[in-house]
Amino acid sequence: MNESNLQVLLRRRPEGEPREDDFEIVEKPVPELGEEQFLVRNRFLSLDPYMRGRMSDAKSYAPPAVLGQPMVGGTVGEIVASHHPAFHVGDHVVGMFGWQRFAVSDGLGISRVSGSIPLSAHLGVCGMPGVTAWIGLLDIGQPKPGETVLVSSAAGAVGSVVGQLAKLKGCTAVGIAGGAAKCEHAVKQLGFDACVDYRSPTFIAELKAATPKGVDVYFENVGGAVLEAASSRLNPFARIPLCGLLSDYSAPTPMGLRNLRALLVMRVRLQGFIVTDHLARWPVAQAELTTEVAAGRLRYQETIAEGLESASRAFIGLLRGENLGKQVVRIA
Amino acid sequence: MNESNLQVLLRRRPEGEPREDDFEIVEKPVPELGEEQFLVRNRFLSLDPYMRGRMSDAKSYAPPAVLGQPMVGGTVGEIVASHHPAFHVGDHVVGMFGWQRFAVSDGLGISRVSGSIPLSAHLGVCGMPGVTAWIGLLDIGQPKPGETVLVSSAAGAVGSVVGQLAKLKGCTAVGIAGGAAKCEHAVKQLGFDACVDYRSPTFIAELKAATPKGVDVYFENVGGAVLEAASSRLNPFARIPLCGLLSDYSAPTPMGLRNLRALLVMRVRLQGFIVTDHLARWPVAQAELTTEVAAGRLRYQETIAEGLESASRAFIGLLRGENLGKQVVRIA
Repeated sequence: MNESNLQVLLRRRPEGEPREDDFEIVEKPVPELGEEQFLVRNRFLSLDPYMRGRMSDAKSYAPPAVLGQPMVGGTVGEIVASHHPAFHVGDHVVGMFGWQRFAVSDGLGISRVSGSIPLSAHLGVCGMPGVTAWIGLLDIGQPKPGETVLVSSAAGAVGSVVGQLAKLKGCTAVGIAGGAAKCEHAVKQLGFDACVDYRSPTFIAELKAATPKGVDVYFENVGGAVLEAASSRLNPFARIPLCGLLSDYSAPTPMGLRNLRALLVMRVRLQGFIVTDHLARWPVAQAELTTEVAAGRLRYQETIAEGLESASRAFIGLLRGENLGKQVVRIA
Repeated sequence: MNESNLQVLLRRRPEGEPREDDFEIVEKPVPELGEEQFLVRNRFLSLDPYMRGRMSDAKSYAPPAVLGQPMVGGTVGEIVASHHPAFHVGDHVVGMFGWQRFAVSDGLGISRVSGSIPLSAHLGVCGMPGVTAWIGLLDIGQPKPGETVLVSSAAGAVGSVVGQLAKLKGCTAVGIAGGAAKCEHAVKQLGFDACVDYRSPTFIAELKAATPKGVDVYFENVGGAVLEAASSRLNPFARIPLCGLLSDYSAPTPMGLRNLRALLVMRVRLQGFIVTDHLARWPVAQAELTTEVAAGRLRYQETIAEGLESASRAFIGLLRGENLGKQVVRIA
């Protein structure tokens, strides 16, 4: 094969906000196939907030990314060569193939995808972020019809699905997002009942006005001051699926949860979760999400960065909230 | 009746740590009985950390104590006069009769107690604190045999029962308490496997050494720096029954939970609870606790203050951790 394998390596562990020179772009030969292996040409790379955690070597639920190796990440791609009896040239597959153009696999942990929805949707609304929303909201948040569901990062890959699923389950859906454009998108395109801009100088008052009956489920993606504001709106016996703490990931001094007392007083259940702990629920979640997308009841938005060369910049933008919806990289 | 009704009134809402002059001692006439009412002469008053919350008018799960009225509190006493067909002179009853010598009741929310255990035990190990330990540990913490249960305020009315129940359920029980005497009491008298003094300059290292297999259930009574230390020892899928935040109640700036990230990374479930939300479980809990006390498998310690005049001082001491085991006031 005449093409090279373009890769984005993690050069050093970022301190605070990642910088483009924490990464390095290299060209390597396309790897050779062994027996029962196949070669994937990646088409889209998923960029997700969890990756910031992997760049660090702090104790976590998964081992840190290895310095000098392609950064870890989920992709969707096409099989372009195969020595594997069950995977054929032309098949489309999703896997953790990393920030690179080509990857070799023996099929472990790989899922084949059909052509019923656009390829990149397997990384977003029907992929890991969508399943995260589904499991976190339904299994952990357990909303009842008529309750109010509040979600931060409401215009993001996970939050946008949380709000729409809440509506499909008969709840009131309120979002929190950064900036008027994202809030407008959540209400007008995604059908949220309201969405509040956390950058507004009157954010606290607006949040209160948007949740007149309080909050029964708060789906948390960001932490920090947004969590503090949301905690003041909790109803008795509220649930907080704790999915992410984006604002704490790069902060030198994490804010944590200062008003923990609200969780005691309101008898709140807060539960951290990682979607990969719940593999048995993925097929149910993906089937429902795909059905809803195909039926037009579940919408999604993508921000597409062009080329692996732009991946690190797009990732920094993701942490800053510059994307709208799912952030992916199209791999040339 | 020639006796007066000695009462301790809440004179003003404490700022920070309560002071004795936030309270006022008065003598009132013994109240007259109406139809279907009875008169209780209180024998013991229970002092509990939740009372600090009632002294404040911040939003909470229960209305604040009323200024100029006897402070709210649970007591055990004897019926000394009755116009009620179902309650008779000589019966012993437990109720929320307040910081006073005499109270009138129509029987609502009152439970009659037998003479099988000492009267004051109905305020502690077999009363609200014991039931709190039982529900918080078993229903919310859900420990499995072989797991490690860590509890703060280990020598207190709730914590001492948590650790002993954990041992009865086949778990390793580790306590955190303030001072060598309390720690020694927890290990030698109550049978904890270990107990760590949070005032020790090497507290963090000692806690680590005492929990070599990490912590599966952390029963939280105090919050603050102790919670932060405990959070660093959590195993994946740990549970935190959040029962109290004693160290935050009087703090001008509550510390909250700075390392919230640990709850995400370890997929922890933290649940605030109030024992009075779980009334259906009380009979089961009280029956089991009484059986264990009678069989000598569940021990308890009391610190008894003499006379209502000493109640406010004893309460301040309770918040400072000066008591050992259940703090009660004997009412003369």
